[in-house]
Amino acid sequence: MDHPDFKNTAISSFEKYLQDKVLVKQEHLPPLLEMISFKSIQKQEFLLSKGDVCEHAFFVLSGLLRMYSIDKNGKEHLLQFAPENWFVSDRGSIYFSQPSNYFIDAIEDSMVIMFDRSFTEKASSISPEFRNYNEYLLQNHVRQLQNRINLLIGADAEKRYLDFINQYPDLFGRVPQWMIASYLGITPESLSRVRKALHKRNP
Amino acid sequence: MDHPDFKNTAISSFEKYLQDKVLVKQEHLPPLLEMISFKSIQKQEFLLSKGDVCEHAFFVLSGLLRMYSIDKNGKEHLLQFAPENWFVSDRGSIYFSQPSNYFIDAIEDSMVIMFDRSFTEKASSISPEFRNYNEYLLQNHVRQLQNRINLLIGADAEKRYLDFINQYPDLFGRVPQWMIASYLGITPESLSRVRKALHKRNP
Repeated sequence: MDHPDFKNTAISSFEKYLQDKVLVKQEHLPPLLEMISFKSIQKQEFLLSKGDVCEHAFFVLSGLLRMYSIDKNGKEHLLQFAPENWFVSDRGSIYFSQPSNYFIDAIEDSMVIMFDRSFTEKASSISPEFRNYNEYLLQNHVRQLQNRINLLIGADAEKRYLDFINQYPDLFGRVPQWMIASYLGITPESLSRVRKALHKRNP
Repeated sequence: MDHPDFKNTAISSFEKYLQDKVLVKQEHLPPLLEMISFKSIQKQEFLLSKGDVCEHAFFVLSGLLRMYSIDKNGKEHLLQFAPENWFVSDRGSIYFSQPSNYFIDAIEDSMVIMFDRSFTEKASSISPEFRNYNEYLLQNHVRQLQNRINLLIGADAEKRYLDFINQYPDLFGRVPQWMIASYLGITPESLSRVRKALHKRNP
Protein backbone atom coordinates (compact mmCIF):
# COMPACT_ATOMS: atom_id res chain seq x y z
CA MET A 1 0.00 0.00 0.00
CA ASP A 2 2.86 2.41 -0.69
CA HIS A 3 1.42 5.18 -2.84
CA PRO A 4 3.83 7.99 -3.79
CA ASP A 5 2.18 10.79 -1.73
CA PHE A 6 2.37 8.81 1.46
CA LYS A 7 5.96 7.90 0.79
CA ASN A 8 7.01 11.52 0.20
CA THR A 9 5.32 12.72 3.39
CA ALA A 10 6.88 9.85 5.30
CA ILE A 11 10.37 10.50 3.99
CA SER A 12 10.30 14.20 4.78
CA SER A 13 8.82 13.60 8.20
CA PHE A 14 11.52 11.07 9.10
CA GLU A 15 14.21 13.24 7.55
CA LYS A 16 13.17 16.06 9.89
CA TYR A 17 13.32 13.67 12.85
CA LEU A 18 16.84 12.56 11.88
CA GLN A 19 18.00 16.16 11.54
CA ASP A 20 16.30 17.73 14.56
CA LYS A 21 16.35 14.93 17.12
CA VAL A 22 19.13 12.59 16.07
CA LEU A 23 21.34 15.45 14.78
CA VAL A 24 22.43 13.43 11.74
CA LYS A 25 24.63 15.50 9.43
CA GLN A 26 23.26 16.63 6.09
CA GLU A 27 25.64 14.44 4.05
CA HIS A 28 24.67 11.28 5.97
CA LEU A 29 20.93 11.64 5.39
CA PRO A 30 20.68 10.15 1.87
CA PRO A 31 22.38 6.80 2.68
CA LEU A 32 20.29 6.44 5.85
CA LEU A 33 17.04 7.25 4.09
CA GLU A 34 17.90 4.79 1.34
CA MET A 35 17.92 1.89 3.78
CA ILE A 36 14.45 2.28 5.21
CA SER A 37 11.06 1.24 3.93
CA PHE A 38 7.53 2.40 4.65
CA LYS A 39 4.24 0.73 5.30
CA SER A 40 0.72 1.91 5.90
CA ILE A 41 -1.34 -0.52 7.93
CA GLN A 42 -4.95 -0.65 8.91
CA LYS A 43 -6.48 -0.96 12.34
CA GLN A 44 -6.08 -4.52 13.69
CA GLU A 45 -3.49 -5.45 11.07
CA PHE A 46 -0.44 -7.31 12.44
CA LEU A 47 3.24 -6.40 12.13
CA LEU A 48 4.45 -9.28 14.30
CA SER A 49 2.89 -12.51 15.53
CA LYS A 50 4.01 -14.87 18.26
CA GLY A 51 6.32 -17.56 16.89
CA ASP A 52 7.71 -15.37 14.12
CA VAL A 53 11.21 -13.98 14.25
CA CYS A 54 10.87 -10.20 14.40
CA GLU A 55 12.58 -8.89 11.26
CA HIS A 56 11.98 -5.17 11.69
CA ALA A 57 11.87 -2.35 14.17
CA PHE A 58 9.04 0.12 13.55
CA PHE A 59 8.87 3.86 13.96
CA VAL A 60 5.36 5.28 14.10
CA LEU A 61 4.84 8.30 11.85
CA SER A 62 1.11 8.46 12.53
CA GLY A 63 -1.41 6.26 14.25
CA LEU A 64 -0.98 3.93 17.18
CA LEU A 65 0.48 0.43 17.62
CA ARG A 66 0.65 -1.89 20.60
CA MET A 67 2.85 -4.83 21.59
CA TYR A 68 1.34 -7.55 23.75
CA SER A 69 1.41 -11.21 24.73
CA ILE A 70 -1.46 -13.69 24.98
CA ASP A 71 -1.41 -16.18 27.85
CA LYS A 72 -2.58 -19.80 27.74
CA ASN A 73 -6.10 -18.69 28.78
CA GLY A 74 -6.30 -16.34 25.81
CA LYS A 75 -5.88 -13.21 27.91
CA GLU A 76 -3.92 -10.30 26.43
CA HIS A 77 -1.15 -8.56 28.39
CA LEU A 78 -0.03 -5.22 27.10
CA LEU A 79 3.72 -4.57 27.07
CA GLN A 80 3.84 -1.29 25.20
CA PHE A 81 1.83 1.34 23.37
CA ALA A 82 3.53 3.08 20.45
CA PRO A 83 1.93 6.36 19.36
CA GLU A 84 3.53 8.91 16.97
CA ASN A 85 7.34 9.18 17.20
CA TRP A 86 7.73 5.99 19.23
CA PHE A 87 9.78 2.99 18.24
CA VAL A 88 8.45 -0.50 18.80
CA SER A 89 9.97 -3.91 18.15
CA ASP A 90 10.86 -7.12 19.92
CA ARG A 91 14.55 -6.26 20.28
CA GLY A 92 15.31 -9.67 21.76
CA SER A 93 13.79 -11.51 18.81
CA ILE A 94 15.59 -9.30 16.27
CA TYR A 95 18.95 -9.40 18.00
CA PHE A 96 18.97 -13.09 18.94
CA SER A 97 17.03 -14.26 15.83
CA GLN A 98 14.61 -16.11 18.08
CA PRO A 99 10.85 -16.60 17.70
CA SER A 100 8.97 -13.82 19.44
CA ASN A 101 6.56 -14.29 22.35
CA TYR A 102 4.76 -11.13 21.38
CA PHE A 103 2.31 -9.61 18.93
CA ILE A 104 2.47 -6.14 17.43
CA ASP A 105 -0.68 -4.78 15.80
CA ALA A 106 -2.38 -1.49 15.01
CA ILE A 107 -4.94 0.09 17.34
CA GLU A 108 -5.53 2.81 14.72
CA ASP A 109 -4.76 3.04 10.99
CA SER A 110 -1.05 3.84 11.03
CA MET A 111 1.94 4.81 8.92
CA VAL A 112 5.23 3.27 9.94
CA ILE A 113 8.86 3.21 8.93
CA MET A 114 10.46 -0.21 8.90
CA PHE A 115 14.12 -0.84 9.76
CA ASP A 116 15.55 -4.24 9.00
CA ARG A 117 17.94 -6.05 11.32
CA SER A 118 21.09 -4.70 9.67
CA PHE A 119 19.96 -1.07 9.78
CA THR A 120 21.33 -0.10 13.20
CA GLU A 121 24.81 -1.43 12.50
CA LYS A 122 25.01 0.09 9.03
CA ALA A 123 23.57 3.44 10.11
CA SER A 124 25.94 3.55 13.11
CA SER A 125 28.94 3.04 10.89
CA ILE A 126 27.78 5.85 8.58
CA SER A 127 26.77 8.40 11.21
CA PRO A 128 28.42 8.71 14.66
CA GLU A 129 25.48 10.94 15.68
CA PHE A 130 23.11 8.09 14.86
CA ARG A 131 25.25 5.69 16.90
CA ASN A 132 25.05 8.00 19.92
CA TYR A 133 21.33 8.49 19.56
CA ASN A 134 20.73 4.77 19.24
CA GLU A 135 22.65 4.18 22.44
CA TYR A 136 20.61 6.90 24.12
CA LEU A 137 17.40 5.14 22.99
CA LEU A 138 18.59 1.79 24.29
CA GLN A 139 19.68 3.19 27.66
CA ASN A 140 16.44 5.10 27.94
CA HIS A 141 14.50 1.94 27.13
CA VAL A 142 16.32 0.08 29.93
CA ARG A 143 15.55 2.93 32.33
CA GLN A 144 11.86 2.88 31.43
CA LEU A 145 11.58 -0.90 31.72
CA GLN A 146 13.31 -0.83 35.11
CA ASN A 147 11.04 1.93 36.32
CA ARG A 148 8.01 0.00 35.18
CA ILE A 149 9.16 -3.15 37.01
CA ASN A 150 9.67 -1.05 40.12
CA LEU A 151 6.09 0.24 39.82
CA LEU A 152 4.69 -3.23 39.14
CA ILE A 153 6.31 -4.79 42.20
CA GLY A 154 6.10 -1.77 44.48
CA ALA A 155 3.36 0.73 43.62
CA ASP A 156 -0.39 0.72 44.05
CA ALA A 157 -2.84 0.99 41.15
CA GLU A 158 -3.18 4.78 41.46
CA LYS A 159 0.55 5.44 41.30
CA ARG A 160 0.88 3.14 38.28
CA TYR A 161 -1.99 4.94 36.53
CA LEU A 162 -0.47 8.38 37.17
CA ASP A 163 2.85 7.15 35.77
CA PHE A 164 1.01 5.83 32.71
CA ILE A 165 -0.63 9.22 32.06
CA ASN A 166 2.73 10.89 32.41
CA GLN A 167 4.38 8.41 30.04
CA TYR A 168 1.64 8.49 27.41
CA PRO A 169 -0.01 11.94 27.59
CA ASP A 170 -1.29 11.63 24.00
CA LEU A 171 -3.29 8.45 24.46
CA PHE A 172 -6.26 9.96 26.27
CA GLY A 173 -9.48 8.82 24.60
CA ARG A 174 -7.67 6.71 21.99
CA VAL A 175 -7.34 3.49 23.97
CA PRO A 176 -10.06 1.40 25.62
CA GLN A 177 -9.92 1.16 29.42
CA TRP A 178 -9.36 -2.60 29.43
CA MET A 179 -6.12 -2.12 27.48
CA ILE A 180 -4.87 0.43 29.99
CA ALA A 181 -5.77 -1.95 32.83
CA SER A 182 -3.89 -4.70 31.02
CA TYR A 183 -0.82 -2.44 30.67
CA LEU A 184 -0.98 -1.61 34.38
CA GLY A 185 -1.39 -5.24 35.45
CA ILE A 186 -4.66 -4.48 37.27
CA THR A 187 -8.30 -5.40 36.68
CA PRO A 188 -10.57 -3.02 34.73
CA GLU A 189 -12.66 -2.69 37.94
CA SER A 190 -9.63 -1.51 39.88
CA LEU A 191 -8.78 1.00 37.13
CA SER A 192 -12.33 2.30 37.25
CA ARG A 193 -12.08 2.79 41.05
CA VAL A 194 -8.75 4.63 40.66
CA ARG A 195 -10.18 6.97 38.02
CA LYS A 196 -13.25 7.74 40.15
CA ALA A 197 -11.10 8.46 43.20
CA LEU A 198 -8.81 10.76 41.18
CA HIS A 199 -11.76 12.54 39.64
CA LYS A 200 -13.28 13.15 43.08
CA ARG A 201 -10.05 14.74 44.32
CA ASN A 202 -9.43 16.74 41.09
CA PRO A 203 -12.79 17.20 39.39
CA MET B 1 40.37 -3.15 51.65
CA ASP B 2 42.46 -4.06 48.61
CA HIS B 3 45.17 -6.41 49.78
CA PRO B 4 47.50 -7.77 47.08
CA ASP B 5 46.33 -11.42 47.19
CA PHE B 6 42.75 -10.49 46.62
CA LYS B 7 43.70 -8.14 43.80
CA ASN B 8 45.75 -10.79 42.00
CA THR B 9 42.97 -13.35 42.23
CA ALA B 10 40.47 -10.76 41.04
CA ILE B 11 42.57 -9.70 38.07
CA SER B 12 43.21 -13.22 36.85
CA SER B 13 39.56 -14.18 37.34
CA PHE B 14 38.34 -11.19 35.32
CA GLU B 15 41.07 -11.70 32.72
CA LYS B 16 39.77 -15.23 32.17
CA TYR B 17 36.25 -13.89 31.79
CA LEU B 18 37.38 -11.34 29.19
CA GLN B 19 39.25 -14.01 27.25
CA ASP B 20 36.75 -16.87 27.41
CA LYS B 21 33.39 -15.10 27.38
CA VAL B 22 34.01 -11.70 25.80
CA LEU B 23 36.68 -13.08 23.41
CA VAL B 24 38.90 -10.03 23.90
CA LYS B 25 42.19 -10.41 22.03
CA GLN B 26 45.39 -10.98 24.01
CA GLU B 27 46.89 -7.61 23.05
CA HIS B 28 43.81 -5.70 24.22
CA LEU B 29 43.74 -7.22 27.70
CA PRO B 30 46.35 -4.99 29.43
CA PRO B 31 44.72 -1.61 28.57
CA LEU B 32 41.31 -2.96 29.61
CA LEU B 33 42.57 -4.38 32.89
CA GLU B 34 44.34 -1.11 33.62
CA MET B 35 41.06 0.79 33.66
CA ILE B 36 39.23 -1.23 36.29
CA SER B 37 39.37 -1.20 40.05
CA PHE B 38 38.46 -3.73 42.72
CA LYS B 39 36.63 -3.62 45.99
CA SER B 40 35.82 -6.11 48.66
CA ILE B 41 32.70 -5.27 50.62
CA GLN B 42 31.05 -6.75 53.63
CA LYS B 43 27.51 -7.97 54.07
CA GLN B 44 25.06 -5.04 54.30
CA GLU B 45 27.60 -2.54 52.98
CA PHE B 46 26.27 -0.16 50.30
CA LEU B 47 27.59 0.45 46.79
CA LEU B 48 24.80 2.86 45.81
CA SER B 49 22.19 4.80 47.78
CA LYS B 50 19.06 6.56 46.57
CA GLY B 51 19.76 10.16 45.65
CA ASP B 52 23.37 9.49 44.63
CA VAL B 53 24.43 9.51 41.00
CA CYS B 54 25.60 5.98 40.21
CA GLU B 55 29.28 6.32 39.25
CA HIS B 56 30.13 2.68 38.62
CA ALA B 57 28.88 -0.55 37.20
CA PHE B 58 29.79 -3.61 39.27
CA PHE B 59 30.76 -7.11 38.24
CA VAL B 60 30.48 -9.70 41.01
CA LEU B 61 33.54 -11.95 41.33
CA SER B 62 32.25 -13.63 44.47
CA GLY B 63 29.40 -13.09 46.87
CA LEU B 64 25.96 -11.67 46.23
CA LEU B 65 24.55 -8.16 45.73
CA ARG B 66 21.03 -6.85 45.31
CA MET B 67 19.48 -3.71 43.83
CA TYR B 68 16.22 -2.45 45.31
CA SER B 69 14.00 0.54 45.96
CA ILE B 70 12.31 1.63 49.18
CA ASP B 71 8.80 3.05 48.96
CA LYS B 72 7.35 5.85 51.08
CA ASN B 73 6.13 3.31 53.64
CA GLY B 74 9.65 1.98 54.08
CA LYS B 75 8.97 -1.24 52.19
CA GLU B 76 11.78 -2.69 50.04
CA HIS B 77 11.16 -3.78 46.44
CA LEU B 78 13.76 -5.98 44.88
CA LEU B 79 14.76 -5.17 41.28
CA GLN B 80 17.67 -7.53 40.83
CA PHE B 81 19.91 -10.07 42.50
CA ALA B 82 23.53 -10.19 41.36
CA PRO B 83 25.43 -13.39 42.23
CA GLU B 84 28.83 -14.38 40.80
CA ASN B 85 29.46 -13.30 37.17
CA TRP B 86 26.52 -10.90 37.09
CA PHE B 87 26.73 -7.19 36.37
CA VAL B 88 24.68 -4.75 38.38
CA SER B 89 24.31 -0.97 38.14
CA ASP B 90 21.71 1.71 37.67
CA ARG B 91 22.41 2.19 33.97
CA GLY B 92 19.95 5.08 33.77
CA SER B 93 21.66 6.99 36.57
CA ILE B 94 25.14 6.39 35.09
CA TYR B 95 24.18 7.22 31.54
CA PHE B 96 21.98 10.25 32.25
CA SER B 97 24.00 11.44 35.29
CA GLN B 98 20.82 11.57 37.33
CA PRO B 99 20.26 10.73 41.01
CA SER B 100 19.32 7.11 41.41
CA ASN B 101 16.04 5.82 42.85
CA TYR B 102 17.75 2.62 43.91
CA PHE B 103 20.05 1.07 46.47
CA ILE B 104 22.72 -1.54 45.82
CA ASP B 105 24.09 -3.43 48.80
CA ALA B 106 25.69 -6.76 49.68
CA ILE B 107 23.64 -9.76 50.86
CA GLU B 108 26.91 -11.65 51.44
CA ASP B 109 30.54 -10.54 51.82
CA SER B 110 31.52 -9.91 48.19
CA MET B 111 34.38 -9.09 45.84
CA VAL B 112 33.51 -6.81 42.95
CA ILE B 113 35.10 -5.15 39.97
CA MET B 114 34.19 -1.50 39.46
CA PHE B 115 33.88 0.15 36.05
CA ASP B 116 33.61 3.92 35.94
CA ARG B 117 31.31 5.77 33.55
CA SER B 118 33.89 6.15 30.82
CA PHE B 119 34.91 2.48 30.80
CA THR B 120 32.42 1.19 28.23
CA GLU B 121 33.25 3.84 25.66
CA LYS B 122 37.00 3.52 26.10
CA ALA B 123 36.96 -0.29 26.15
CA SER B 124 34.73 -0.35 23.04
CA SER B 125 37.15 1.83 21.13
CA ILE B 126 40.06 -0.46 22.12
CA SER B 127 38.39 -3.82 21.50
CA PRO B 128 35.69 -4.47 18.88
CA GLU B 129 35.01 -7.79 20.64
CA PHE B 130 34.25 -5.91 23.82
CA ARG B 131 31.92 -3.56 21.91
CA ASN B 132 29.99 -6.53 20.54
CA TYR B 133 29.77 -8.23 23.90
CA ASN B 134 28.59 -5.07 25.58
CA GLU B 135 25.83 -4.73 23.02
CA TYR B 136 24.90 -8.35 23.61
CA LEU B 137 24.66 -7.66 27.36
CA LEU B 138 22.48 -4.61 26.82
CA GLN B 139 20.14 -6.39 24.40
CA ASN B 140 19.95 -9.35 26.74
CA HIS B 141 19.15 -7.03 29.61
CA VAL B 142 16.28 -5.50 27.64
CA ARG B 143 14.99 -8.98 26.80
CA GLN B 144 15.07 -10.04 30.46
CA LEU B 145 13.38 -6.86 31.68
CA GLN B 146 10.65 -7.23 29.05
CA ASN B 147 10.12 -10.86 29.98
CA ARG B 148 9.87 -9.94 33.64
CA ILE B 149 7.27 -7.23 32.90
CA ASN B 150 5.31 -9.77 30.90
CA LEU B 151 5.35 -12.14 33.89
CA LEU B 152 4.44 -9.39 36.34
CA ILE B 153 1.40 -8.26 34.36
CA GLY B 154 0.39 -11.66 33.01
CA ALA B 155 1.55 -14.64 35.06
CA ASP B 156 0.42 -16.12 38.37
CA ALA B 157 2.69 -16.45 41.40
CA GLU B 158 3.72 -20.03 40.56
CA LYS B 159 4.83 -19.19 37.05
CA ARG B 160 6.81 -16.20 38.31
CA TYR B 161 8.50 -18.35 40.94
CA LEU B 162 9.47 -21.03 38.41
CA ASP B 163 10.93 -18.36 36.15
CA PHE B 164 12.89 -16.99 39.12
CA ILE B 165 14.40 -20.41 39.88
CA ASN B 166 15.34 -20.77 36.25
CA GLN B 167 16.91 -17.30 36.15
CA TYR B 168 18.81 -17.66 39.42
CA PRO B 169 19.59 -21.37 39.93
CA ASP B 170 22.50 -20.54 42.27
CA LEU B 171 20.53 -18.58 44.84
CA PHE B 172 18.87 -21.50 46.57
CA GLY B 173 19.35 -21.22 50.33
CA ARG B 174 21.28 -17.93 50.06
CA VAL B 175 18.37 -15.51 50.06
CA PRO B 176 15.57 -15.12 52.61
CA GLN B 177 12.06 -15.91 51.40
CA TRP B 178 10.78 -12.37 51.92
CA MET B 179 13.37 -11.06 49.44
CA ILE B 180 12.25 -13.57 46.83
CA ALA B 181 8.62 -12.59 47.44
CA SER B 182 9.62 -8.93 47.03
CA TYR B 183 11.36 -9.73 43.73
CA LEU B 184 8.26 -11.55 42.50
CA GLY B 185 5.87 -8.78 43.57
CA ILE B 186 3.86 -11.17 45.76
CA THR B 187 3.36 -11.52 49.53
CA PRO B 188 5.57 -13.91 51.52
CA GLU B 189 2.37 -15.86 52.35
CA SER B 190 1.62 -16.35 48.68
CA LEU B 191 5.21 -17.50 48.04
CA SER B 192 4.88 -20.00 50.88
CA ARG B 193 1.65 -21.37 49.35
CA VAL B 194 3.31 -21.71 45.92
CA ARG B 195 6.30 -23.56 47.38
CA LYS B 196 4.04 -25.96 49.31
CA ALA B 197 1.95 -26.69 46.23
CA LEU B 198 5.06 -27.32 44.11
CA HIS B 199 6.55 -29.55 46.79
CA LYS B 200 3.35 -31.59 46.95
CA ARG B 201 3.43 -32.18 43.22
CA ASN B 202 7.22 -32.84 43.06
CA PRO B 203 8.30 -34.00 46.52
